[in-house]
Amino acid sequence: MTTASDSPFDLGWRLNRTPAPTAVVVFGASGDLSHRKLMPALYNLALQQLLPPEMVIVGVALTPWSDDEFRTEMKAAISEHSRNGEVDDEVWHGFAQRLRYVSGSFDDLDLYQRLDALLKEADADLGTRGNRLFYLATAPTFFPVIAMNLGKVGLADESDGVYRRLVVEKPFGEDLATAQALNQELSQVFAEAQVYRIDHYLGKETVQNLMVLRFGNLIFEPLWNRRYVDHVQITAAEDLGVEGRGGYYDGAGALRDILQNHLFQVLSLVAMEPPARFDSRDVHDEKVKVLRAIPPVRVEEVAEVAARGQYGPGYIAGVPVPGYREEEKVDPNSNTETFVALKVRVENWRWAGTPFYLRAAKRLPKRATEIAVQFRSPPHLPFLETPVETVTPNLLTLRIQPDEGASLKFVAKVPGPSVDLRTVSMDFSYGSSFLKGSPEAYERLLLDALVGDSTLFARWDEVETAWEIVDQVLTAWAGSAADFPNYDAGSWGPESSDDLMARDGRRWRRL
Amino acid sequence: MTTASDSPFDLGWRLNRTPAPTAVVVFGASGDLSHRKLMPALYNLALQQLLPPEMVIVGVALTPWSDDEFRTEMKAAISEHSRNGEVDDEVWHGFAQRLRYVSGSFDDLDLYQRLDALLKEADADLGTRGNRLFYLATAPTFFPVIAMNLGKVGLADESDGVYRRLVVEKPFGEDLATAQALNQELSQVFAEAQVYRIDHYLGKETVQNLMVLRFGNLIFEPLWNRRYVDHVQITAAEDLGVEGRGGYYDGAGALRDILQNHLFQVLSLVAMEPPARFDSRDVHDEKVKVLRAIPPVRVEEVAEVAARGQYGPGYIAGVPVPGYREEEKVDPNSNTETFVALKVRVENWRWAGTPFYLRAAKRLPKRATEIAVQFRSPPHLPFLETPVETVTPNLLTLRIQPDEGASLKFVAKVPGPSVDLRTVSMDFSYGSSFLKGSPEAYERLLLDALVGDSTLFARWDEVETAWEIVDQVLTAWAGSAADFPNYDAGSWGPESSDDLMARDGRRWRRL
Repeated sequence: MTTASDSPFDLGWRLNRTPAPTAVVVFGASGDLSHRKLMPALYNLALQQLLPPEMVIVGVALTPWSDDEFRTEMKAAISEHSRNGEVDDEVWHGFAQRLRYVSGSFDDLDLYQRLDALLKEADADLGTRGNRLFYLATAPTFFPVIAMNLGKVGLADESDGVYRRLVVEKPFGEDLATAQALNQELSQVFAEAQVYRIDHYLGKETVQNLMVLRFGNLIFEPLWNRRYVDHVQITAAEDLGVEGRGGYYDGAGALRDILQNHLFQVLSLVAMEPPARFDSRDVHDEKVKVLRAIPPVRVEEVAEVAARGQYGPGYIAGVPVPGYREEEKVDPNSNTETFVALKVRVENWRWAGTPFYLRAAKRLPKRATEIAVQFRSPPHLPFLETPVETVTPNLLTLRIQPDEGASLKFVAKVPGPSVDLRTVSMDFSYGSSFLKGSPEAYERLLLDALVGDSTLFARWDEVETAWEIVDQVLTAWAGSAADFPNYDAGSWGPESSDDLMARDGRRWRRL
Repeated sequence: MTTASDSPFDLGWRLNRTPAPTAVVVFGASGDLSHRKLMPALYNLALQQLLPPEMVIVGVALTPWSDDEFRTEMKAAISEHSRNGEVDDEVWHGFAQRLRYVSGSFDDLDLYQRLDALLKEADADLGTRGNRLFYLATAPTFFPVIAMNLGKVGLADESDGVYRRLVVEKPFGEDLATAQALNQELSQVFAEAQVYRIDHYLGKETVQNLMVLRFGNLIFEPLWNRRYVDHVQITAAEDLGVEGRGGYYDGAGALRDILQNHLFQVLSLVAMEPPARFDSRDVHDEKVKVLRAIPPVRVEEVAEVAARGQYGPGYIAGVPVPGYREEEKVDPNSNTETFVALKVRVENWRWAGTPFYLRAAKRLPKRATEIAVQFRSPPHLPFLETPVETVTPNLLTLRIQPDEGASLKFVAKVPGPSVDLRTVSMDFSYGSSFLKGSPEAYERLLLDALVGDSTLFARWDEVETAWEIVDQVLTAWAGSAADFPNYDAGSWGPESSDDLMARDGRRWRRL
C-alpha cells in the first residue's frame, strides 16, 4: 500500500516544516497556561527534534525569578504536565540552555527595552537572526498594552527580512464591540498576517482529521449536503465544573468560552466547501463563507433558537457536587450560563434546510466533544413489512475527545430466516489504529506559528463574523432575568434545550 | 433504539413464514447433498420450530433401505454435519417420526405410484393436505426424468388448492442449448412458478445483507454508480482442490460450477436498481435487467475479457498437493479449467464504464468469497504536497465466507505535526455483532421454498441470460487447446488473469 507518508513529496514537506532560527517570548510565563501547556509543548517539540538549534525561549512575567529559578519552575511543570512523562536529561539540558527570563510589569516600557536587549544578545550569541514569536498568555486586558509596547521598542517591525509574530490567546473580545476594539488596537501595531489567534480546538487531531476524512476520501463528500444530511449536532460536554476558574468563567459563560470560538470553528470546518489548497488563505476564505452564510440571531428569535442554563447542585458519577453559584469566586447571584445550546442555519446551496445544533456545557454526565452527522432516512424500503420509520438512519460521529475516533452506524440484516434489520456500527479509534500518541494541540499550533502557517488559527473576519452571529443572543440574555439554576449537575441540561430540539421533531444525542 | 425486530409488523410477517402442512420429497436421499446439507437443514428448521407439525419427509433413492435404516443413516448424517452439534433427543424423536423412505429407480414409473400412495396416506394420517415439495438432489441427467414421471402420476398438478413445487439443484444445463432443453422439458410438467432453482449463494447471510446494506441505509446508494465506483471485483476463491468430486468437476469446470451461476447472481444483486418491493417478482425483474445489460461475450473477444487456468502441483499452507490432472477421477489430459476470470461490462445508465471483474478458482492460497467495491480516487486533494495518486482510494468489501462481514477502507490523518495520510479501516463482523449464528444457506432456502417465496431462487430468464453471456466463452475454449497446467496450486492463478487486469491498469486483490 502506498501511503502519503512513504512519498518523497511528503518527506520534503515535513523537512520544510522545521522552523527557522527564532526567539519565542512568552508573556505570562508564570501563569497556568505556560505551566500546563506552553512549556510542555515547547519541550515536546524539542524532544521530537522539531525545533531549530538556534533558538531562545524567553519567559516574561511580574514574578521576580532569575533564569535558573525559571528553569527549575519550568522543569517541574514539564515533568508534571508533559504527555511524554519523565523529563529526558539530555534533551532537558539543551532545552534549559535556551531558557531566559525577564521580570517586569507589562505596562512598563522599560521591560520591553530590556527584552529587546536580551533578544539582540541572543541574535548575536545564539544565532536567532532577529525572528521573534510573541505569545500572549496573559489576561486579555494586557493584549493591547503588550502589543503597543512591543511596537514602541520596534519589536513589531518586520523589515530586514525578519518575522515578528503575535500569538493571541482566547478570549478575543467579550462581544462584537469589544472584539472589534481589541482588533483595532492590535492592528495599529501588527498587521493581520502577523497575528495568530489561538483556538486550541483547531490543534486537535480529530479536527484536522475532519479535513482529511472529508477531502481525502471520495465517499463522504457526495453525502455531505442537505440532500442526505438531516442535521448536525456539535457538542462540547464537560463533567467538570469551573474548577477554580470561577473568576474568569463568571465573567464569560459557556457561549463566550466555548460556543462562539471553538464550536463555530468546528462548524465551519464541517460545513465548508472543499478548499482548492489546504493553506491559510483558502481554508480561511472557505470558513468565512460558511460563517457569513449564517444569519445573525435577532433579539426576537433568541428564545426560539437558543437555550441557556446554569447548573445547581447534583451528582457526578454518584458523587455530590455543589451548584455553580456555590463555586469559588462565583457571584452567589450569578446569571452566567454554564450551558448554551444554539440552532444555526447555514443558508447556502449546500446546507439550506439542514440545521446545525451546537451545545456547550459544564457539569453534564460525561466529558465528550463530538460532531454527529445525522443522515436522513432512506427514501423507501423495499422490505415489505418494515416501514421506513422503524429503521434508524445512518449516523457518522467524530469524537474529538476523549478517545479520538470515528463511528458509522448503519443497518444490517439480523442472521436468520427473515429480513430483520438492526443498527450496527463500524468504529475507528486513533488509539488502536496508530501507535504514536496524538500530540497536544499546543504542540501543533506552536510549530505552525513558528513556521508561519496560520491555517489552523482564527482569522479576524472569522472571529468577527462569529461574534456578529451571537451578539444579539448576549444582548437578549443580558437584558432578561434568567431563572437559574435550571438544571442539576450531572443531568443533560435545562428543559429549554430539549424543547429547542423537540420543536424541530429532533432530540439531542445522549453521548 | 427502535429496530425492525421490535415492530409488530415484522412479528406478523415472521408468523406468516411458518409453512403450511406439507410433504417434502428428496430425490437422491442417499446422496452426499442429502447427508451433508438437506437433512441437517430440515432438522435445524425443526429444532427452531419453523416446521409445521403436519409434515412428512420422504427420501427416495435406489439404495434398498427400510424407513428405520433411512432414519438411522440420517441421524448419523445430522450428527456429523448439523451446525448445532449433538442431536437433541426430543427434537429427533419428533423428526424421525416424519421420515419415510421409498426405494426405486428414477426411471421406473412404479416408484412414483408407490410414492403417490405413501403421500396420500400421509395426507390422511399426518394431515399433510396434499401439498408436496419435490427436491431434486440427484445427478442432473435425472431432472427431466423425475419431472416427467411426477407429471404422469399427477404429482405436478396444483388443482384443488394444493401446491406442488419442484426444487432443482445445480447445474442447470451445461451451456445455453442444454439449459434451454432442460427448461423445455421441465416446463412441460411444471409451470415456472412451481420451479425453484437453487443457488445456495443466495441463501448466504452476506448476500441477503447486501440488499439490506444497499437499501436499508441512505449512505451507500448515492455512491453506488459509475460516478463513484471505479470497478467491482467478485471473487470465489477456494484453497481446496476437487476433493473427490473429480468425476463431476472434470465435466464442468470453474465457469460452469461457480461463475455462470453463483457469481452472476451476486453480480446482479450488487448492480441492480432498487426494487420497489423485496418480493420475488420485483427482485427477479431487477436482476434480469442487470444481466440483460451485459453484452454476451463474442468469440473474438474471449482472449481479451476472459482468462482460464488449471492448477499444477504446488503447496497449500506449506503442504505439497498434487496437480489437477493427478486428482482422482480426473482425466490425466483434462483441459477443464479450475480457474476462471471474466471482465463484465454492465451497459446501463448506472454502470457504463465501471467494469465488474469476476473470478472463481480452486487451489488459490486461501478460501475467501467476497465482493470488493473499489471507489475512485478523490477528484482533487487540497493537501499541498500529497498528490492524489499517492492516496489509496476507498474500498468497501463484503465477505461472504468465511467470517461474514464488511470492511470499509478510508484515509485518515496520521497523528502528528504534518498532514500525513494513511489508509485505515472500519470493520463489521457478523460473528461479533450478533449472538445467534448464521443459519446455513439451505435452511433459509428450504424454508423459503416451503412458504412459496422464490425471491432467493434463480428464475429461468436469469439462468438463460447468464448462459447467453458466457456461451461463446465455452465455445472458444472448447475449440482451442489450453496450455494447462498454467498455475501452481497455492498461487493466485495464471498470468493471463493478471494480464487481463493489467490491460485496464488494475490489479486483483490479494485476499
